[in-house]
Amino acid sequence: MSDVKATNVTWHEGHVTREERQALLKQKGVTLWFTGLSGSGKSTAAFTLEHALVQMGRLAYVLDGDNVRHGLNKNLGFSAADREENIRRIGEVAKLFADAGVITMTSFISPYRKDRDLVRELHAKDGLGFVEVYVNTPIETCEQRDPKGLYKKARAGQLKGFTGIDDPYEEPLKPELTLDATSTSPQQMAEALIGYLRSGGYLQS
Amino acid sequence: MSDVKATNVTWHEGHVTREERQALLKQKGVTLWFTGLSGSGKSTAAFTLEHALVQMGRLAYVLDGDNVRHGLNKNLGFSAADREENIRRIGEVAKLFADAGVITMTSFISPYRKDRDLVRELHAKDGLGFVEVYVNTPIETCEQRDPKGLYKKARAGQLKGFTGIDDPYEEPLKPELTLDATSTSPQQMAEALIGYLRSGGYLQS
Repeated sequence: MSDVKATNVTWHEGHVTREERQALLKQKGVTLWFTGLSGSGKSTAAFTLEHALVQMGRLAYVLDGDNVRHGLNKNLGFSAADREENIRRIGEVAKLFADAGVITMTSFISPYRKDRDLVRELHAKDGLGFVEVYVNTPIETCEQRDPKGLYKKARAGQLKGFTGIDDPYEEPLKPELTLDATSTSPQQMAEALIGYLRSGGYLQS
Repeated sequence: MSDVKATNVTWHEGHVTREERQALLKQKGVTLWFTGLSGSGKSTAAFTLEHALVQMGRLAYVLDGDNVRHGLNKNLGFSAADREENIRRIGEVAKLFADAGVITMTSFISPYRKDRDLVRELHAKDGLGFVEVYVNTPIETCEQRDPKGLYKKARAGQLKGFTGIDDPYEEPLKPELTLDATSTSPQQMAEALIGYLRSGGYLQS
């Protein structure tokens, strides 16, 4: 086993500190919480940013319906309690990722202010950055795009409790950033977010 | 905003691939699932490895009772169903971390074979590495150490359903690695694990 020795390593017990992770990754873990209507452009913005950051040598990861709803939260439905628990769990997982040093993006409608504020508090209590990104695209645009055909189904009454149609979307009162995917390209949104991360000290040069 | 431009970036949509993450981090995400009795030395081994990897410039993270039981899983108790759900959620989160490229360690007694096998399957289905690390320290040693005073309480009947006393620990049948913290120091355990990661192609030189 001599060839596998981790030489020059000082041995420690207990958690690696955030400062040590920051020095390793040249970045500070943070959660960018994208919120907005279905079809508003949250995922496009998040994935565009993820690609840009990785190309810049930064570690980023997107939590979205694909990797969370079918995994961690597959035992949750769409009742009020389950929707709340859905967001709570995503918030807790985002917090773990941010603690690990990752620039973490979440892409969920997350229509209720109370749920988003709970996630904000979770991060604040633990000294972790939380950036609420409101993708404020008019519902007319979202409905026109309708990439998954969901608005059509909701208008036809085949989907109940659809945000913006027969369930409310509670706008963020003080989001850190507001973007409108009608007037702003994904690239522009990503650049605005990178600028925000830089000025907030999340990316070291 | 000209000073915040992410120049030289090609813009993409959709998820960053695992290969791109691997190239960035010089490592492949994987889950090292530590299992064993309370006091067996799981956490010590995991944290010693975490420190060693970070010093070697690798990104590692430990999921344990401290950051999971009081957060994501704080709404779970100790019923059979809740214990199962506890391990399932930890498995799903570990999978997300491994997908993000992180060398992820989980430190939970996880006494039931069925639950551990479920997590193994979750990873396999998604093409992610899963390494079951059995910290096989004799119960006599664990009870002598009793770092949290839990064996004492269990013996006094103040703790019900305590693994190894009045609840079973189901030994792994085919763990990838077995360690005994009586005869092996944390450093030696960490070196064995680093050797395993190297030979498995999880760490690139």
